[in-house]
Amino acid sequence: MATNPLLSGDSRFTIDNIPFGVISTKQDPTPRCAAAIGDFAIDLAKFAGDSRLDSIIGQNAATDIFSKPCLNSFAALERETRRAVRAALQLDIQDELIPPHCLVKLADVTMHLPFSIGGYSDFYCSLEHVQNCSPLAGVANIPESWFYAPSVYNGRVSSVVPSATPIRRPRGVYHGPDGKPVYGPSRALDFELEMGVFVSKPIDFASVLDIRDVEEHVFGFVLLNDWSARDLQVFEMKPLGPFHGKGFGTSISPWVVTMEALDPFKCSPKTKQNPAPFDHLKWPGPAGTFDINLEVELIRAGKVVKICSSNLRYLYWTPYQQLAHHASAGCGLSTGDLIGTGTISGDNVAEDGRKTELGCLFEATVGGTKEAELSDGTRMTYLEDGDEIVLKGTCGVKGGSAPFVDFGECRGIITPALSS
Amino acid sequence: MATNPLLSGDSRFTIDNIPFGVISTKQDPTPRCAAAIGDFAIDLAKFAGDSRLDSIIGQNAATDIFSKPCLNSFAALERETRRAVRAALQLDIQDELIPPHCLVKLADVTMHLPFSIGGYSDFYCSLEHVQNCSPLAGVANIPESWFYAPSVYNGRVSSVVPSATPIRRPRGVYHGPDGKPVYGPSRALDFELEMGVFVSKPIDFASVLDIRDVEEHVFGFVLLNDWSARDLQVFEMKPLGPFHGKGFGTSISPWVVTMEALDPFKCSPKTKQNPAPFDHLKWPGPAGTFDINLEVELIRAGKVVKICSSNLRYLYWTPYQQLAHHASAGCGLSTGDLIGTGTISGDNVAEDGRKTELGCLFEATVGGTKEAELSDGTRMTYLEDGDEIVLKGTCGVKGGSAPFVDFGECRGIITPALSS
Repeated sequence: MATNPLLSGDSRFTIDNIPFGVISTKQDPTPRCAAAIGDFAIDLAKFAGDSRLDSIIGQNAATDIFSKPCLNSFAALERETRRAVRAALQLDIQDELIPPHCLVKLADVTMHLPFSIGGYSDFYCSLEHVQNCSPLAGVANIPESWFYAPSVYNGRVSSVVPSATPIRRPRGVYHGPDGKPVYGPSRALDFELEMGVFVSKPIDFASVLDIRDVEEHVFGFVLLNDWSARDLQVFEMKPLGPFHGKGFGTSISPWVVTMEALDPFKCSPKTKQNPAPFDHLKWPGPAGTFDINLEVELIRAGKVVKICSSNLRYLYWTPYQQLAHHASAGCGLSTGDLIGTGTISGDNVAEDGRKTELGCLFEATVGGTKEAELSDGTRMTYLEDGDEIVLKGTCGVKGGSAPFVDFGECRGIITPALSS
Repeated sequence: MATNPLLSGDSRFTIDNIPFGVISTKQDPTPRCAAAIGDFAIDLAKFAGDSRLDSIIGQNAATDIFSKPCLNSFAALERETRRAVRAALQLDIQDELIPPHCLVKLADVTMHLPFSIGGYSDFYCSLEHVQNCSPLAGVANIPESWFYAPSVYNGRVSSVVPSATPIRRPRGVYHGPDGKPVYGPSRALDFELEMGVFVSKPIDFASVLDIRDVEEHVFGFVLLNDWSARDLQVFEMKPLGPFHGKGFGTSISPWVVTMEALDPFKCSPKTKQNPAPFDHLKWPGPAGTFDINLEVELIRAGKVVKICSSNLRYLYWTPYQQLAHHASAGCGLSTGDLIGTGTISGDNVAEDGRKTELGCLFEATVGGTKEAELSDGTRMTYLEDGDEIVLKGTCGVKGGSAPFVDFGECRGIITPALSS
C-alpha cells in the first residue's frame, strides 16, 4: 500500500474523500468532470471513455455525463449510482487500476465552477454571528422570526466564482465621513466564513420537501467565502436586504466533498433549539449536522496569519433544516443549486481574552470601530487591496487510521476598485 | 393591405410590434423561437430553415439560434443584426412572403419562458408604492437610501413561470390570529403589477456599465406579476428582505416586446428626481423611460373586474437607471437575465374618491385591514383560491395610423395550498 503513488500520507485527498470537480489543463483546455485522489485528479471523461464505468452507468457515460463542463448530469443520477461510481473509483485506486493517462497532477489543473448554478441562496443561521451582528446593524434584539425559521436571502449567481478568482473591490453608495451618501470604492471589505451545499435531486416548482428525504437531495459540501462590503450593505439593507454589499463576489472551493465522504462525521448541532422547530423542520434523529473544522487565514504582504477557526456544527439551524425550509414554500430547487450556510461563528475565548471563532471582520472589529488583534499580534480592520483570504476545512485527523477528509482551499485576493 | 391576413385591424400584434417568444405546438412539441404578427406566430426555426435569414445571420441561423428553446442566442447577437431580422420580418409580412408552413395560429401554440434566465432581480422604485407601503410595514419614513440608488433584491429564478402557469398558494411561517408564529397556508395572497426587462448584451463579472450604453444591453420588456404572500413576507423581511413571501411564483407575459417596438413611446419620467442622481445614474437626455399603459383585471367566479391601471413612466427610478445601478458593483449580467421594475403605482383619485392606480392589494386594502372597493362595487381583501389575475399593457391607441403595441397578457390562477 505504501508504494501506491495515489495514497501517499502527505497528499491532500485521501481514499476516504474522493471529491468531485471540474478541471481543464493546458494540453486539454475543455472543462470536464474529475475526481481527486492524493495529489492527482482523475479525468473522468477519459476514465469513462475507457469503458471503466459502463457496468454502472452505461456506455454513454463519458459523453453524456463526464465530458460536460459541470457536475450537474452526474449529480442528477440516483444516489445509489453515484455511490457505486465512487466505490468503483476507490477500488481501482487501491488496486492501482486507474489508467495513467487518466491522471493529472493537481498542480497542473485549472479548476472551474463545479456546477452550472441555477440558484444561489445564502442563510444567516449562526446564533453567535447574529448575536454579534445585530447590535452593530442597529437591531436591539434578534428578530423573533430568526428562531422560527432559518433566515435567508437570494444571492447573485453570476458572482459565484471558483477559488483563486481575484475579487475586485466594488464601488457603491454608502455614508461618507461627513454622513452624506457618496458613491465610491468600498472602505469596509470583509470576508465571511461559510460552507456551501450543492443540490443533487431536484424539487419541483410548487412542491415541498419532507425533511426525512433531505439526504437524497444533497450532493455535497464546499467552502464558501461570502465577500461583503459592509458600508454598501449597511446603506442598502433597509428594507430589501443585502444586494451589492454581497453581490460583487462569492468564492467557493472547487472540489465538492460528497455526503458519502462526510458520513463518518455526522454529529449533533452544538446548540439545542428553543423554541422547538415546526414539524416540517424537525430532524428525525440526533445527528443532523457534520463535524467539520474550519479555518481562515489572511495573507498580507507575504505573511500568513490565522484569523479564526470554527466548526459547521456550531450552526443553530443545520444545513438539512435550511434545505427543508428553502423548499417549503414551493420555489423549486434544481440540480446544481447552491446554498450558503451563512457565516459560522463560535464563542471561544482564548487565554489572552481574544475571541478566536468570529467568522468575519465585521464581528472581530465590532463593526469596523476597533482593530482586531490576531494571534501573532497583527492588528487589522477591514481588507486592503492585495490581501488574500484562504478558507480551509477538514474532518478528522490527518495520518491516523480513522477517516480524514480535506476540503482543499477557497482563496481570493482583493484587487483595486475600477477608477470610475 | 386590408386583405393581408396577418395585418387585420382586430388582431393582437401589429406590424409596429413583432414581439419574440418561444412556442411549441401539439404537432411539434419541441420549444423553438418565434415572432408574433396579427393572430399568428411565425416559427423562426422553420423560417430560417427556409434560408430566409441567411443574408443577415448566416446559413446556420435555424440550427444555432432559432431552434433553441430560448431567445438567448438571438438576444446575444449585435443589436443591428436583431434589428435587421425584425425589419426583414416586417417587409416579408407586408409583402405576404411569409411561407404558410411557418405560420401557426396563436390559439394553437403553447408559450414557454422566452429566455433561459440566469439571474432575476426585482426593484422597488415607485415613489407612490413605497409611500403607501412603508407605514404598513412599520417604517415611519422612506429610508434615505431609497432616494440615492434604486432599491432592489435578488429574486428566485426557479419560480419565474410563463403566463397561464397556475400559482399554488404557498405555506409558510407568519403570525397567527393570537400573535404566535404558525406554519400554514398564506392568508394574504397578493399580486404586484410590474414590468420585466430582459438583458441582451452581457456585462462581465467585475465590470460596470456606462448608463449611456444601456440601450445596447436591453432586449425588451414583458409584463410581470410579482405574486406576494404578505403574511410570510412581513414575518421574514427583517433583516434579510423578502424570500418565501415572493419566491413561490413570478409570472411573465411570454412575448417580449423589443426596444425597437418601444422606440416611438420614449418619454420622460413623471417625477423629477430630488436629490439629483449620482453621475453614474444620470440619463443623458429627457426621454429616459416609456409611455406604457398598464392594467390589472381580477376574474372571480367568472366575472371580470378591473382592479387598477398604471403606467411605466410613473416609476421614480427608470429601468435604465435600474440596470446601470445593478451593474455598478461588478456582479455581472448575462444575456437572458430578468429585471423586475418593482410595483408601478400612481396617485390618481377617481371622482368617487377611490384610488385607481394602486399596483397591489397590500396598498388597496391598507395592509389587509380594510376592503378595497373596485369600480363595479366588488369588495375584496386578498386573493382567494380560484381567483385569476390578468395583467395587460399597451402603447398608443389601437386602430389609428400611429404605432400601437400590445404586450399580450400575463395571467395566473390561484390554486389551493398543499395539504401539508
